[in-house]
Amino acid sequence: MPSSTTSEKGSEPGLPKATFCFRCIGCGAVADSAAQDFRCAQCGNLLEITDSSWNSRNPAALKSLWRERRTSNAALDLSGVWRFRELLPAPAAAQQVVTLREGNTPLYELPQSSRATGVVRLYAKHQGMNPTGSFKDAGMTVAATFARQAGFRWVACASTGNTSASMAAYAARAGMRSLVLVPDGKISWSKLSQALDYGALTCQLRTDFDGCLRLLQELVRQAPVYQLNSINPFRLEGQKTLALELLEQLDWQPPDHIVVPGGNLGNSSAIGKALLEMLDLGLIPRLPKLSVIQAEGANALVRTLREAGGKHLVSVQAETRATAIRIGNPASWQKAVKVLQATGGACDEVSEVEIAQAKAEIGAEGIGCEPASAVTLAGLKKLLRGGFVKPDETVVLVLTGNLLKDPDFTMKFHRGELFHGSAHQQENASLNSFRHPPVVLDANLDAVVRTLEQAERSVPTHANV
Amino acid sequence: MPSSTTSEKGSEPGLPKATFCFRCIGCGAVADSAAQDFRCAQCGNLLEITDSSWNSRNPAALKSLWRERRTSNAALDLSGVWRFRELLPAPAAAQQVVTLREGNTPLYELPQSSRATGVVRLYAKHQGMNPTGSFKDAGMTVAATFARQAGFRWVACASTGNTSASMAAYAARAGMRSLVLVPDGKISWSKLSQALDYGALTCQLRTDFDGCLRLLQELVRQAPVYQLNSINPFRLEGQKTLALELLEQLDWQPPDHIVVPGGNLGNSSAIGKALLEMLDLGLIPRLPKLSVIQAEGANALVRTLREAGGKHLVSVQAETRATAIRIGNPASWQKAVKVLQATGGACDEVSEVEIAQAKAEIGAEGIGCEPASAVTLAGLKKLLRGGFVKPDETVVLVLTGNLLKDPDFTMKFHRGELFHGSAHQQENASLNSFRHPPVVLDANLDAVVRTLEQAERSVPTHANV
Repeated sequence: MPSSTTSEKGSEPGLPKATFCFRCIGCGAVADSAAQDFRCAQCGNLLEITDSSWNSRNPAALKSLWRERRTSNAALDLSGVWRFRELLPAPAAAQQVVTLREGNTPLYELPQSSRATGVVRLYAKHQGMNPTGSFKDAGMTVAATFARQAGFRWVACASTGNTSASMAAYAARAGMRSLVLVPDGKISWSKLSQALDYGALTCQLRTDFDGCLRLLQELVRQAPVYQLNSINPFRLEGQKTLALELLEQLDWQPPDHIVVPGGNLGNSSAIGKALLEMLDLGLIPRLPKLSVIQAEGANALVRTLREAGGKHLVSVQAETRATAIRIGNPASWQKAVKVLQATGGACDEVSEVEIAQAKAEIGAEGIGCEPASAVTLAGLKKLLRGGFVKPDETVVLVLTGNLLKDPDFTMKFHRGELFHGSAHQQENASLNSFRHPPVVLDANLDAVVRTLEQAERSVPTHANV
Repeated sequence: MPSSTTSEKGSEPGLPKATFCFRCIGCGAVADSAAQDFRCAQCGNLLEITDSSWNSRNPAALKSLWRERRTSNAALDLSGVWRFRELLPAPAAAQQVVTLREGNTPLYELPQSSRATGVVRLYAKHQGMNPTGSFKDAGMTVAATFARQAGFRWVACASTGNTSASMAAYAARAGMRSLVLVPDGKISWSKLSQALDYGALTCQLRTDFDGCLRLLQELVRQAPVYQLNSINPFRLEGQKTLALELLEQLDWQPPDHIVVPGGNLGNSSAIGKALLEMLDLGLIPRLPKLSVIQAEGANALVRTLREAGGKHLVSVQAETRATAIRIGNPASWQKAVKVLQATGGACDEVSEVEIAQAKAEIGAEGIGCEPASAVTLAGLKKLLRGGFVKPDETVVLVLTGNLLKDPDFTMKFHRGELFHGSAHQQENASLNSFRHPPVVLDANLDAVVRTLEQAERSVPTHANV
């Protein structure tokens, strides 16, 4: 059983030569291999992956190669992650790659939200259209590949749900077994069912996400279990491809703003890293501003910047119905601070009511997403009000999870069960026009026609956006 | 408000000329337009769409054109349905097309099921990776396009869940309103939440699916509401692209067998129509056998063939936990009988226990699907036992719905709540090795390590397949 993850050297037709190394984001120390906790051996900070070959390539040739690969039926080319393998750490052999044809996610226009906000060029990059329904898959394909290459039989993660679903699927695909640590009673039924279906050993721990993560750190130090949390830098490498694919979809014209939900902050870190690497390489002429939006009840990054100038983490006791970002002690906060500063992005927070309304508005576009994704639209409105975003700028919202990840939220919203009690009278009044609960009727034509006529007289949801 | 759907003539750059017409599958009468109930004005039978231009094209040129479009960023080319528009009814203008970038679904190998069944070349075409999580999207993009072109403000369907989710999304995208009729208490929570999120007016009727469908027929005869059930022949045209895309993924080498779940039988009809058209056109040199698998409790087609030689429909009182195919009176039974006969496919039924086991096996591949999809793997085993399928033949299973469509089924399965009571002792014994319910633990390292060691000693699910 291996005790460390190494950047095994090698190359083969179709794969770039593996020349990557691990670099500490704190002290800058560089190493060929990483310990199981993915911490710097010198100073204990997080590692990132870098490769000197990445900025020595011809950008025009890369663009043409990546586009050409879209016509290929080869497994590596069909993956929206591995299609961009020139900017990823390369495994020793193509057969090591664990793929479920992740990536290739749509970039949608949002015509109704566009009219409502005045932002003419408004897009949603929907990572919830990945194989297990969240952005996690883009990173998991890379990390699972290196777990398998290193010979591990078990992989593990602590999770609010999406990571566990993704890890369990890729582990199953790779013939590895997976251990999931989730906070008891704090993850959605749907996400839990995914981990079970993909064959994971699922432990619901009587603690919160941060407690699960602490226990995982102890576990990987004493057992031959490979850690697949987002401090695993391979995951962030895979998640970089969100930005590569997005820019390709925009014909390499950078948007002015990319807005992303902030939970454990691995995604913002990955997107930021990709943008900086793309600029270095000459793939794009300028940087979009990358902004991070959190839920008010899980606003560790907001407070870290506001109260500590980004110098140290201000952790919080996280509470939000957007369970995918219910994280009080985000692992990648330093990486996120760095990319916010490098791209000039903003960091803001939105309320539970703003999240619920934005989610209904995205649904009314015919798209749908999980609650955490909707912070992006809610945040955009706030950034517009504050003048940080201008209506004539191009904006891309990153939707991170599928609508089907949390049906309970949707049902409770429409039934008026999300915000109840007298404390919420005002919120409920503002949300009522977005609600249309199911109607139970006898199977009778007149009853249906009456209901239809009543709805015909009412203004449809999206007119109120 | 329009009272009929016509094949409006027109063409524009990028779209083929619209020259299609409606043909009755019973008496063969041909018409330029169809009434709202999509029934033959002469004999009352179902209509299908045909176009004389479809078999006048050069197959090699089409293959090359379709592949080349994969490099395009144009909306019509990004759709896995409209990319094949030369074999679809053409709307008058490209702007009429309502698309959510449907299609483009993965073709997965099934290594574990392959080893377990002995079928070396075994694939799953996963239509559950469509935007709303089911195969319905491929048809809905075409039918919603023609609903909008005809000027309708309201669209409607009766549904066991997947159709309503898809229709609501495409209606929202098109700026139309949607009415959903579902059997009260008989659809999954997840599917209902989708219809609500996309803004549908949702009526839960105190009847079954067939009752909802009857009421819909009455409604469209008296109100300006466009019917989007699968008797709408535009839907079947879009669903044809499943077969086109599949064959392209197989480099146009036809598999020996395609196995599809049978509910309302629109999907099998559409796939069969596509196969016959591809053969006519010379896109493929021979026909795969198309086989339809039903749940034992909803086996109308099985009984129609067995008891009535396919001459008249034997309807049943449908009961199965695979809700997506809980249909006793399938609308497209005649079309399905025709394609079964034309391709030489089989029709068979599988038990609830066989469905549950097959679903767990597909999950253990890291893929996952809803229960109705799993009838294909369960059915394949039966067809192998009966000798209809040979292990050295190439087999494609069509998975129709996403795992997240029915989390309840998965949770109940793993908790042992699906088959309980003494009547099911034997079934439970056979299924127990596939179950791994979540474990609730204190956040304590020793407890987790003990659980891990215990699991390490147990044989993983997929070894028992």
